[in-house]
Amino acid sequence: MIQRPRGTRDFGPEEMETRRYFESLMRDVARTHGFREVSTPIFETTDLFVVKSGPGIVDEMYAFKDKGDREICLRPELTAPVIRFFVSDLTTRPRPLKMFYFGQCFRYERPQSGRYREFFQFGAELIGAPTPESDAEVIGLAASIIKRTGLQDYRIRVGHIGILRSKLASAGVNPDDMLKILQKLDKKLYDEARPLMKEAGMSDDDLENVISTTQITGPMSVLREFSGEAKEHLEQVFSVLHAYGFDNVSVDLGVVRGLAYYTGMVFEADAPALGAEKQICGGGSYSLSELFGGEKVFSSGFGIGFDRILLALQREGTTSPVTAIQAYVVPVNEKMRARAFKIVADLRGSGIVADIDLMRRNLAKNFKYADSIGARFTVVIGEKEAEDSSVTLRDMRSGEQAVVKTDELVDRLRP
Amino acid sequence: MIQRPRGTRDFGPEEMETRRYFESLMRDVARTHGFREVSTPIFETTDLFVVKSGPGIVDEMYAFKDKGDREICLRPELTAPVIRFFVSDLTTRPRPLKMFYFGQCFRYERPQSGRYREFFQFGAELIGAPTPESDAEVIGLAASIIKRTGLQDYRIRVGHIGILRSKLASAGVNPDDMLKILQKLDKKLYDEARPLMKEAGMSDDDLENVISTTQITGPMSVLREFSGEAKEHLEQVFSVLHAYGFDNVSVDLGVVRGLAYYTGMVFEADAPALGAEKQICGGGSYSLSELFGGEKVFSSGFGIGFDRILLALQREGTTSPVTAIQAYVVPVNEKMRARAFKIVADLRGSGIVADIDLMRRNLAKNFKYADSIGARFTVVIGEKEAEDSSVTLRDMRSGEQAVVKTDELVDRLRP
Repeated sequence: MIQRPRGTRDFGPEEMETRRYFESLMRDVARTHGFREVSTPIFETTDLFVVKSGPGIVDEMYAFKDKGDREICLRPELTAPVIRFFVSDLTTRPRPLKMFYFGQCFRYERPQSGRYREFFQFGAELIGAPTPESDAEVIGLAASIIKRTGLQDYRIRVGHIGILRSKLASAGVNPDDMLKILQKLDKKLYDEARPLMKEAGMSDDDLENVISTTQITGPMSVLREFSGEAKEHLEQVFSVLHAYGFDNVSVDLGVVRGLAYYTGMVFEADAPALGAEKQICGGGSYSLSELFGGEKVFSSGFGIGFDRILLALQREGTTSPVTAIQAYVVPVNEKMRARAFKIVADLRGSGIVADIDLMRRNLAKNFKYADSIGARFTVVIGEKEAEDSSVTLRDMRSGEQAVVKTDELVDRLRP
Repeated sequence: MIQRPRGTRDFGPEEMETRRYFESLMRDVARTHGFREVSTPIFETTDLFVVKSGPGIVDEMYAFKDKGDREICLRPELTAPVIRFFVSDLTTRPRPLKMFYFGQCFRYERPQSGRYREFFQFGAELIGAPTPESDAEVIGLAASIIKRTGLQDYRIRVGHIGILRSKLASAGVNPDDMLKILQKLDKKLYDEARPLMKEAGMSDDDLENVISTTQITGPMSVLREFSGEAKEHLEQVFSVLHAYGFDNVSVDLGVVRGLAYYTGMVFEADAPALGAEKQICGGGSYSLSELFGGEKVFSSGFGIGFDRILLALQREGTTSPVTAIQAYVVPVNEKMRARAFKIVADLRGSGIVADIDLMRRNLAKNFKYADSIGARFTVVIGEKEAEDSSVTLRDMRSGEQAVVKTDELVDRLRP
């Protein structure tokens, strides 16, 4: 038997219906917020991600040479492709430019529970509005999407990378060391961060001050001792989030996002239902466009781990509507077949989900099949009823049968 | 500037909206026909397609080794993955099993007009019903989808590979030669087919009879001189298509589909608007499951070239609905900002596509921006109106303004 590649998934009809339902819900929320969808290729030049994230990323990607000896790779994330697209084609659009996207991403790593080599990402980017409002708009979209999925238990935590950066800088840390330190702090690996900070020339006081700063979490009032641009920015972000009705968002200066291109506000959302790997969303404001040869432009955005949020919803027992077969049409004999096909075509044309016997089964076997596919009604096309322009309608839940005029069938079957 | 890989596309907001509209329309039609969506990974083991189509396919694919030295490739089509999925996970489902899919496929070839290295395929497979009805159901679904897109000019041509196969077999052609000959006949390369038929030992009479058979096209009556199983099968397929209301389908024995796994009915749809590369859909009944280690099972299906049909629709001037920004909300000053964010959140929560000033622009610039994004109305949040729980609503088409109570705003703005 030929196997599916390791770390990938097939999705059957029930799972696909759930996935499309939530995908479409996320798309609707993004649209009502004035974001519009864009799409980029599944593979990109390897360079795009090396420029963004450094050469280390190549080991974590599906990177290969195509037949023309070009280095290409399956995209590991979608921000870089969208910004590449912006730089090459969208710079003349009115600003702010609000975009969202949904699609597969890929990583080469040992498959483990809840982490796949092919996974799905929903995300948004807002380009060209260097205001606290636009950071709040991005957080607000993420929060609205998560809320609309019906997820019960989630936390949104907002920080500002500028606070730690300025503390590290005034303690004499140079930019290269800073990134390494921030990456350790991002993962709360304090035992690994401490020696790095020492080596970077920080005093014990400065070092402990930075570590205790990453542990500041709570409502806006936890920042009462702080001052400066970063704090003022966060205050305004929180005041817009308040106007938007999101009061379940907290400050967390431990949100670090260990990548060099984040510039200011950073945020994450967790779903405790997921246990240790609980992050479902991450984002912030960043500067990438100029790395790809474009102008420097203020951007903020986020990515939602679509598989993660679905897993969290499943653990919470949330379900999504299922499209059942509303009518299963059965001709009683060969003579009635043409009539049956005509009727099923009319039902489908009226938007009713309808199926028909394609196996020439007898009535008993057809009822059994109708049951097995979860059909709501069976429409039996009999000879006697045909003379009277009628059919027999059987309710598959109650077992009740009724003779119904053919021209009333659509109304009777509309869910 | 970092470039997009050759032969691939980015899709901007307008194009994506069109694409999602038609994708969703196709999905709806498939659902009303009792087909359910499945999904498989973007990459597969290279073997899957070699087993299906022969080793020659490797040259036409994005095939590479992953870091674990496994031969994998970007999928060139979706029937093989779906049947692989069927064999491994879906064999115990009730039959017939009706599935559809939509997604990217990839081919490595010189990019040319209308042919991309990354392209999109919509398709369906019906498994386990060896009847003319199921062939008709598959053709009927393809026809319904094409019709629902609004495409004006298209032709559906149905043949039966058994007719040519039995003619070639009774003229003494062995199976290996037969496939080569059929591939030439598929492409109407008669000058290349003739010497192959000669070499395979066919008489001139048999040879010309086969060639003239491939030129038989027209209504069912063109088969009046024929007899046998294949003809009877086609007759029943056409009678179901007639009951379904599809009378624009014709017989074409020149539809050959040059692949070994087709077993009986074969069909294609063309859009003349596309010129030489006019095929938008192809399919038929086939036998693949046993090649992948499963049981032998009757299947039929089709693939629609999503990019091709969109191009045909575009050439015919068909348009799709556009989601415009219905309301653009503007606070007149900083004091009104919180109120403005509250109002935009309410509008969005009611499903209205609404946007808000994120740039702190003045009123004149905001009107200009609202125009540039095609906003239908601008909602001005002024101080005097606020005292009276009202806002000013400006119709961006007529330029008319009216003061409207905030609690009537949603009703006034619903499109």
